[in-house]
Order: sequence, then C-alpha cells, then structure tokens
Amino acid sequence: MNTTGRIFRCTTFGESHGNAIGAVVDGCPAGIGFSEEDVMPLMERRRPGKSPLSTSRSEKDQVEILSGVFEGKTTGTPVAMIIRNENFRSKDYDELKDVFRPGHADYTYHEKYGIRDYRGGGRSSGRETAGRVMAGALAMKLLDREGITVAGRILEIHGETDPAIFEEEILSAKNSGDSVGGIVEVSVMGCPAGLGDPVFGKLDAGLASAMMSIGAVKGVEIGDGFLSAGALGSENNDCMDKSGYLSNHCGGILGGISNGNEIVVRIAVKPTPSIGKDQQTIDISGSERMISIGGRHDPCIVPRIVVVAECMAALVLADAMLAQKISRI
Amino acid sequence: MNTTGRIFRCTTFGESHGNAIGAVVDGCPAGIGFSEEDVMPLMERRRPGKSPLSTSRSEKDQVEILSGVFEGKTTGTPVAMIIRNENFRSKDYDELKDVFRPGHADYTYHEKYGIRDYRGGGRSSGRETAGRVMAGALAMKLLDREGITVAGRILEIHGETDPAIFEEEILSAKNSGDSVGGIVEVSVMGCPAGLGDPVFGKLDAGLASAMMSIGAVKGVEIGDGFLSAGALGSENNDCMDKSGYLSNHCGGILGGISNGNEIVVRIAVKPTPSIGKDQQTIDISGSERMISIGGRHDPCIVPRIVVVAECMAALVLADAMLAQKISRI
Amino acid sequence: MNTTGRIFRCTTFGESHGNAIGAVVDGCPAGIGFSEEDVMPLMERRRPGKSPLSTSRSEKDQVEILSGVFEGKTTGTPVAMIIRNENFRSKDYDELKDVFRPGHADYTYHEKYGIRDYRGGGRSSGRETAGRVMAGALAMKLLDREGITVAGRILEIHGETDPAIFEEEILSAKNSGDSVGGIVEVSVMGCPAGLGDPVFGKLDAGLASAMMSIGAVKGVEIGDGFLSAGALGSENNDCMDKSGYLSNHCGGILGGISNGNEIVVRIAVKPTPSIGKDQQTIDISGSERMISIGGRHDPCIVPRIVVVAECMAALVLADAMLAQKISRI
Amino acid sequence: MNTTGRIFRCTTFGESHGNAIGAVVDGCPAGIGFSEEDVMPLMERRRPGKSPLSTSRSEKDQVEILSGVFEGKTTGTPVAMIIRNENFRSKDYDELKDVFRPGHADYTYHEKYGIRDYRGGGRSSGRETAGRVMAGALAMKLLDREGITVAGRILEIHGETDPAIFEEEILSAKNSGDSVGGIVEVSVMGCPAGLGDPVFGKLDAGLASAMMSIGAVKGVEIGDGFLSAGALGSENNDCMDKSGYLSNHCGGILGGISNGNEIVVRIAVKPTPSIGKDQQTIDISGSERMISIGGRHDPCIVPRIVVVAECMAALVLADAMLAQKISRI
Repeated sequence: MNTTGRIFRCTTFGESHGNAIGAVVDGCPAGIGFSEEDVMPLMERRRPGKSPLSTSRSEKDQVEILSGVFEGKTTGTPVAMIIRNENFRSKDYDELKDVFRPGHADYTYHEKYGIRDYRGGGRSSGRETAGRVMAGALAMKLLDREGITVAGRILEIHGETDPAIFEEEILSAKNSGDSVGGIVEVSVMGCPAGLGDPVFGKLDAGLASAMMSIGAVKGVEIGDGFLSAGALGSENNDCMDKSGYLSNHCGGILGGISNGNEIVVRIAVKPTPSIGKDQQTIDISGSERMISIGGRHDPCIVPRIVVVAECMAALVLADAMLAQKISRI
Repeated sequence: MNTTGRIFRCTTFGESHGNAIGAVVDGCPAGIGFSEEDVMPLMERRRPGKSPLSTSRSEKDQVEILSGVFEGKTTGTPVAMIIRNENFRSKDYDELKDVFRPGHADYTYHEKYGIRDYRGGGRSSGRETAGRVMAGALAMKLLDREGITVAGRILEIHGETDPAIFEEEILSAKNSGDSVGGIVEVSVMGCPAGLGDPVFGKLDAGLASAMMSIGAVKGVEIGDGFLSAGALGSENNDCMDKSGYLSNHCGGILGGISNGNEIVVRIAVKPTPSIGKDQQTIDISGSERMISIGGRHDPCIVPRIVVVAECMAALVLADAMLAQKISRI
Repeated sequence: MNTTGRIFRCTTFGESHGNAIGAVVDGCPAGIGFSEEDVMPLMERRRPGKSPLSTSRSEKDQVEILSGVFEGKTTGTPVAMIIRNENFRSKDYDELKDVFRPGHADYTYHEKYGIRDYRGGGRSSGRETAGRVMAGALAMKLLDREGITVAGRILEIHGETDPAIFEEEILSAKNSGDSVGGIVEVSVMGCPAGLGDPVFGKLDAGLASAMMSIGAVKGVEIGDGFLSAGALGSENNDCMDKSGYLSNHCGGILGGISNGNEIVVRIAVKPTPSIGKDQQTIDISGSERMISIGGRHDPCIVPRIVVVAECMAALVLADAMLAQKISRI
Repeated sequence: MNTTGRIFRCTTFGESHGNAIGAVVDGCPAGIGFSEEDVMPLMERRRPGKSPLSTSRSEKDQVEILSGVFEGKTTGTPVAMIIRNENFRSKDYDELKDVFRPGHADYTYHEKYGIRDYRGGGRSSGRETAGRVMAGALAMKLLDREGITVAGRILEIHGETDPAIFEEEILSAKNSGDSVGGIVEVSVMGCPAGLGDPVFGKLDAGLASAMMSIGAVKGVEIGDGFLSAGALGSENNDCMDKSGYLSNHCGGILGGISNGNEIVVRIAVKPTPSIGKDQQTIDISGSERMISIGGRHDPCIVPRIVVVAECMAALVLADAMLAQKISRI
C-alpha cells in the first residue's frame, strides 16, 4: 500500500511529527548519476514557509541518501532517502487529539486502525509527499537520460484562470479564515510511443492512480478529459498524416499506450480542509463539537502540489519506460 | 499488467477474435456461492446486439467456469472463467490490417510490440471487458455478503442530461456516421468506514486506476470532483454531527479511506472512435490514407460501459474489504 | 499465491477433476514463435500412463492456446492455455470424500478452507503441474533465443544411484503396495553472468521457491549444497584464472547472481503418499480409520517430475533474464 | 527484489559501508506493541565482535524506529527502522577494489551492474542481514500474539555434531587461515494448521526462498528433507489418530500448508569465503592474482546466522498468518 510501481518501485514512510520521512526506491538501474543536490531543488519547490501564502512552519528538509549510491552513481541496489522532522510543535495538536477535523482523514484513520498518530495528521499529512518528491527526483534523472521531461503548472485557483490574480484569491481566502483549491496540469514531453501496458497497466490508469493518491486530489483527466464526453467522434478522434498526429485530444495516450505526443494530465485539487472558520464536528466519544483550526496551515495547497504531481508522473513514466524495454525481443 | 488487485487478484486475457476471452480470480475466499448464473445477467447487460443502438454482432457469451468452484461454492483456489469467441467475421478487418484507425490503439500497439492482432482490435477491443465482468460478478457476490452493493447509471450522453433524449442523441450520431460519448456515475452503497490504504493504496486511487483502465474513459472524479477545485474550504468540507456526516462533497472517501457514506465516482467516456465519416490517417508504411470504418460498431459505448464500471468498482472494493480485515489486530 | 514471477508472470489454475487445467503467462515479450507444438513434447514427458511404472489414467492432455499468440508469434498480451480434464473416474474418490489420506494435503486443505474438492486431490493433485509445464514451455522458447537451456535427470531412486536399477526399485515398491522417491538434478547451461537480484530476489532463492513449490519436493540444494556445510572455505571457494572459474562448488550462483557457470540444482522428492498398504488415519468427524489407497497411482513420481522441475527452472530463469536487461543503463 | 512478503511486506536497504542499513515493514496490523527494545536483543545475537570466534569489528547497531509506531504501538503505517554504519575502516578494502574475491559476489555484482560498492562487500555483505533482523523482530511480536514462536539452533559445524566441539572446529579453522560452515535447524512451534497457499505460495516454498536468500545458505530442507528421498512411502507418510499426527516426517507441512505440527527447516551454511590462505583469482582487468584476505572476518558465520534464519522464518509465518485470516468467509 505504501509502494508504487512494478519495476521502478517506490516505497515511502513517515509521519508528520515522527522521527523522519523517507523513501526507498528499488529497481532503479545502476549507473544513474544521483546525489542530494538532485533532490533539493524539488524539495525547495514543495517546501512551506516560502511566502505569506503558505504555512509558516519552516522545514529545512535536508535530504540524506542512506544507500544505493556510490561515488555519485546508483549501484542497482535500493536507494533509501530520508529527511528529519524538526521544528514541529506537537503541542499545537494536543487539543485536536480527540476531535475529528472536517475534511481530514482523522475519522477514517480512527475507524480503520483504531489508533492514530494525531500529531499534524500523522501519515495523512501533506508532509508525506516529501517522500514522493525524493523518489520522483530519482525518476526524473532516469527519464532525463531518455529525453523525457515533466512540467506542471497551475491552470486555476478557485475558478480563476488568470495567474495574475492567483495570489489575490489565496490571500482573500486566508483573510476570511477560509481556503481555496484549483486545477493543475502536468505535461510530459519527449515521451516515445509505446509506453504503457494493457489492460490494467495502462499508462493513463497508472497516472490516474498516481495523481489521485495525492492528498486533496479529487479528479483526474487525460487530454480533453471530461470535455470529450460531450464531443462527437469526428471531433474527438486525432487524425494522422505523414508528420504524425494532427491534434492531441487524447492527451498523448491511446489504448493506454503513449502515442508519441505530449502527455497531458489535469488534476482537481480541493481547498485545504484546515480553516479558521467555525465548523461542526464530533470527537472520539461521539460528542458534538465546534472547531476552528488555528496553527500554521496553507490556505491553498495548489502551488506546493505542482512539484508533487510532477514527481508522481515521473514515477509512473520511469516504470513504464523500463517495462517497455522488455516488451519485445 | 493484466492483473489487478493485491489480495483479490483478477487476471484477464483474450483478444477480440482469438479463441476465448477469460479471467482468473485468485485470492477469493472459500465458501462463496458462485455459478455461471451469477455472471450471465451481468454479461447480458454488456452484450452488444440488443438494440438498434449497438453493434449488431451477436455474441452469445456463455460463461464457463473452469476451476475453483466445487458443489456451487468457491474453494479458495483460482476461479478461471472463459467465453468462447464466435460469430466473428475476421474478413471485415482484412482491409484494416495495415492501417491505423484514428482514435484507436492500432498505432500504439504497433509501436509498442511491433506485432498486433489487428482482427477486431485484438486485445484493445472493448470485448476485453468481458473478462472484467466475469471477475466483477464474483467480486459482487463477495461484497454482497458484507452488505455492499454497486450501482451505475448514465448521467449524460453527448452533453445531454435528460435520459429521455439519450436514445435520440445516439441515433442522431449514428445516422450521420458519427458517434457520441457521455458521463457515467457509479455509486457504492453500504460500504463501512475504514476501507482503503495509505498512501498509494488509497481507495480513490484504486478506483481511479480501475476506471481509467477501461477503454474510452478519459476522466475520473470522486464526489464533487472538479467542482471542488472551485469551492471554498468552508463549502467543501463535510461537517459531522452525532448522526454522521452532514454532506458528502468528498464522495465517501477521506484521506483515501472510506468514511461510511455512499462512494460516488464519475467517469468521462469518449465517443467511440469507429465512425463512418471519412478520416485522414496513415498506414503501416507511413502512406497517407482516407478511412471510413464500416462494419458493426456502437455509435455510443456508454450504455454498455455501465456494467463494466460497476464491475471494476466491485473489484476494487472486494480487494479493499479483504485488506481491511487484517489491518488491525 | 497461484502466480509466480515478477516480469514473466505465470498464473496457473485448475483441479484434477474440474473442467480444465490451465496457465496464463503475462509479461512475455512480443515476437516469440510459439504454438501448441512447442508444449506437447513436454506434456508428453509428464504424461502418466506411458509405462507400467506409472498410473494407468490415460490423459490426452491436448493443449489449446486461448490468447496471446497471433500468426504463430506472441503478441505481448497474456498467453492463456488450457487442457481439458477427461477420462476421470470421480467415483474412485467417493470413498475418500471424508477421510484424510496420510501424506496428502486432504487434512490441511480442510483445515485451511473448510471446503475441498476431494476428487483426485483437487488443486493439490499432481495434475496441477500441467499448468506449470504449459507456462514452462513458453519460458523455454524465450530462453532458447538467449542460448539458455535447461536439462534435468534422475540421480537417485530410493537411494539407488545406478540408473539400470531404477525400474527395479520402482516395480519392487509397486509390488509390495508401497512407493519410493528419489533425487533429481536440474542443470541450466548457457546462462550468462548477472542474472538474479539482491537480496530477496536472489536467483537461488527463486529456484528454491520454484522447486519447493512442486508437490512432493522436500529439499533443494544449489551446487555442493549440504555437502558444502562440511567443507573448509579453502575447499569450497571457486578460484578463478583468466579462463574463468576453476571449479563449480557454488553451482553457478554467487551472492544470488549467476556467475556464468552451469547452474546446478538438486531436489529431494518424497515417495508418493498414495500406497496400497494399510495406514491409520482419521476422517472428517475425527473417527479413526484404516485406509488402503486403491485406484490408479504412481508408485514413484520421480520420472514424471523431471520435466516439471525443468519448467520451474525455466520460469525462474526467464524472469531473471528479462529483469537483467534493465538492471543498468 | 529487495522486498519480500505479500501482505506483511519487508523491504531492506543498505550497504556495509554506506550511511545506514534499514528495513521498512508495510502491512503490519495496527496495535502491536513495538519499540527498539524488541529489536535490540535480536540484533545483539547477530552482532559480531562478541567472542574471539567472530570478526572483531565492533558494531553498536543501535536501532532507530523512524515511523509507524506511536505511543509504543504500531499504527498500521510503514514501520521504518535503521542502524547507522560506524567503526568501519574502508581503507581495509582499498586493495580489494579491483579484485574479485573467490566465493564472494564481487565478480557477479560487477557483471550484473557494471559498478559496485566494493567497500566491505557493499550490499552483498553479511551486514545486510541486520535489516532482516529488524523486520523479523516485528514479525515475531505479531506471531507472539498468535502463540507462534520460532527457535533456531546449530546442528553441525564442519560436519561435527557435538556442540562441545563446535568452538574447537572454528578455532582450528581460524588458526589455519581457513573457515568452516555448518547446518542450522529452525523450528516453528504453536503454528496452527492452515497456513500457506497453493500452489506457488506454499509455506515450504516461502521458507525455502527466505532461507536461500540468506547469504552463505546453499541448501534447504523441510522435515526429513533429503532423507525422505530414500524412504518408502509407508515409512515417510505421517499417520493420524484421534490425538493428531503420529509422526512428523513432513516437518509440519503437507501440500504446502501447515498441519499443526512443529515446522522443521534445516539449512546448509557454506564456510565463509574470506580466508587468509592464498587463493588464485583475477582482477577487474582480467589479470591473474593471488589473494589472501586479511582484515576482520568471521572464520564461521553459522553462530551469527541462527537469529537471521529465525527472523526469515518469522517473516514468512507472519505473512502466511495474515493471509490465512481471509482465506475463507
């Protein structure tokens, strides 16, 4: 459950306020140049505390590679990486110990396990994504050698599509003790035709799972996505001539296999559930409670989720790329 | 790649015009009542040739259970099931042998494998979903014992939301040699809280993968889905009182784990790519060609996809339900 | 549990007296020449009824390929194969319905599942190995292209090492209503260095699991095996000069990875548990019973197990061979 | 490849002279009491430097739990554990950088990956087993709740079966710059009937793989093992009366499923390959070399391997025990 991938396999671990967050990548080929310096720029992009728009928790998040790299190159053995959890104020969470925050996983973890690390959301914290970024950084290095790159961007914040107004939307929500979500698009460039496997291993199925596994993501679409449901076949089909495909309604994937065009994935990110406004909920004993979430929280997770979505796409692509190398003989 | 699930594992096989289509379910507990009669009603729902709206290929699709059932009950060993392929007219496809149909997987399979069974789309044919339905029927029997049921319905055809007009939309497309898609919603009722696993094994991630793995599906959303991207946190959070959740914006899943509410999944189904209208494409030698797809094809796959989507949901739920039984001790 | 392999994955299904026995191979590269004719010679080698030494049940065992092969070549999609069960006399087993045969899996299946297909041993019958042979035949075709071959032979029957006397040992046991076992050695020739993965995916670990998963196998050793436990390091180490290794005590595997030498595996096969002699046992109600197994049974399974062991070795090697192609970049 | 188990899954990582050795256990149920104190006694048993018989490298091996445990109990999320590598003298290995030590994995890793961490054997070092012990300690805690215990002991050292003479055998080898191996037996007590899955998931197949995956192990047998190959069926079958099985030739496993008796596994451990005596080998350029291994090395690994074998058995049993809880409904 905490492992993804068939060949390039990533296992993550760690709770928000535990000792460390980490990832183990198994199945990475030997010979890939890799060091902490490859991870840190990505970690920096997901780091909170960079602007007034995000939580003021300052995380240094210095990555340490524990294994699998020797003299600057992967050796074919598992690459384990961790960051230490520091600067956390567990006391902030003492009052949340017994209460189920609306929109959070508090209740569901409690129902599932009968026990939960309530400090900062435990395993369900957004901080968990640091492990994905560590592994994704390695996937990107591998893809880079094949000429495949991944890039994400914000399409919408709270329904607004003009990037100049994104910050305003977020601040407005923050000031009213509320939060907003948005839409992120991830593109994969340079991907050759042939990646992805029938039928449950389709590339788009893998991407859908990878994206939906990110906390706060509630929808995934490929290419024209939900728009294609309203189109005619003659509008939606991508015709070809000698130069290749003449359009990209399919978002670079047909029959679950890449067709050589840009791969386009969009995800719907819900507003962060931690808000200052009063909300009705219950506690562990079933008693009703009003709750207002204080502490350091992002009024909008969208800007920080971009790099996480890129990393998830990279993990899926790296896995499919390796699988494709042995799909025919 | 042709296997899905961790505990309740389903492997499917078969090409449109090969000898048989089938499924093997491994990991199904012993003692579940199961026979061909449990599968046939679902097979009937996905069967083509029932109305003027769908392909006139008449498939009997009589399921045969090959193993794993004894005296009407599962024995704990793999349940293999097949249907024979009959009534196919491979000659229909001879002229498509060397040409890549727009919107189909012809080109991508060719690029991936260097060889493809071009007859009727081979493995990428919609007929492949028969295997999913066989396995899904068994999953439903298992879920039934836990009081969990799955039901799908059409929300839209070609943008139209009034069910009375669905048939008209499809016939209109058919008459103009075109095709239409639509939106399907699948609901899971009676699901207890606690199903789904962090972080890559989230219930919504599993559902997203399962749905996106169905041919023609280009988008998946849970609960409010893409709408939630435009909402405020105070609008999107589901508050609780003693009686439970007061709304279901999250679609029954929080932090990747079911919260006891109805699980709601919507999928975007693209218009079928096989259309009579002329389309530009290339053949295997790279020469440009105009193509018009004759033969027996659905102008809209949406009505037949409903049961397939239900079956995929059932497979995901059955797996999660078994996993949950050993998540605490 | 009924699937083996990471990349070249084989799933088997079927009971002794059910409708069919079969195998699905997923992950086989496209382009491998394969037909029923590649399987039948191996099936013939495991077929009973060939001599007075084995069970007189006559199984035709005609293999049918259901999918994954087109115009004589694998297409990259799952290769499903079955044989039909015929000529079985279930009535032979009616009296065994409620009794636990000593040395058989009757009691353990009953304890595990609470239900069992008692006819002919059900899933625990030696007939299950037919699925392994079908899949193994495909693995061998793949290995053949890489110059890797697998060959097995009998080393001992009932402690006797002279092949001329093997038949005598078996007939002697048969005539006294008893049975015998023996030792089989499987060699892999032409295997390049580099196959196998640390640490749980070691080649010898894979071979040990594969061999021990065959019914009746109670021991596995690689190279000098148990003998090496009594040797000095200076005797057991394989030294090297320019021409390569000077000895092969390690059986072609060091650190779980092939070293380019012949791979040598030996397995201990227990005497078949079905014997005519009276044995004490209990029935399903716990009552004590004396039992004498009549019917058609092999007094020695060793001759028929050779090809099964070869096939299991081939499955492990095919998987490792494909994995090795992406172990460095 | 570095992950074992289907439900209770253990991933290990780390090289002998890298930053850390560790393990991640995913799929452990919530609610198991667990702390570093549960691991340390086992780590102590595998620790070198305790007596003149083993390497003088002094490893503190203080385990740190990084995640998955909260207030002394497992939470259902991954349990990651590490020990830091200290006190290593990499210079000892500089002269071994380009040479392939006989009996070691130097050559095979080089052939496989084209790069290797030569310091102390890297990933192929016996130090890798520390990760297995961390994970095994958690498995034992889980088994303990089910009344299942695992115990190992030395049966032979260099062919000698009298424990009083074991130390003498080892010292004698050490003094002559040589090494010895031996035989270890692991017993599982309190295991209920019903654990293990047909056909590739058999309990003995899992144990065989687990044991053979330990470096230096060259053979595995269950119950009478190789002896049973020479027995008659009437001698080898375990008869039953009302009180249960009357003998245990099968070693507690029939048809791959536990029968409720003591499970008995024996493993052949080869003499450690690092010896002081001169041996012929080649270096990375193919030139012939004589080599004598100095440094701190065990003349016999058998005493330290006992706890590792116990831990591997515990991992297999924990996985099978959880699987069994959902094998019928």
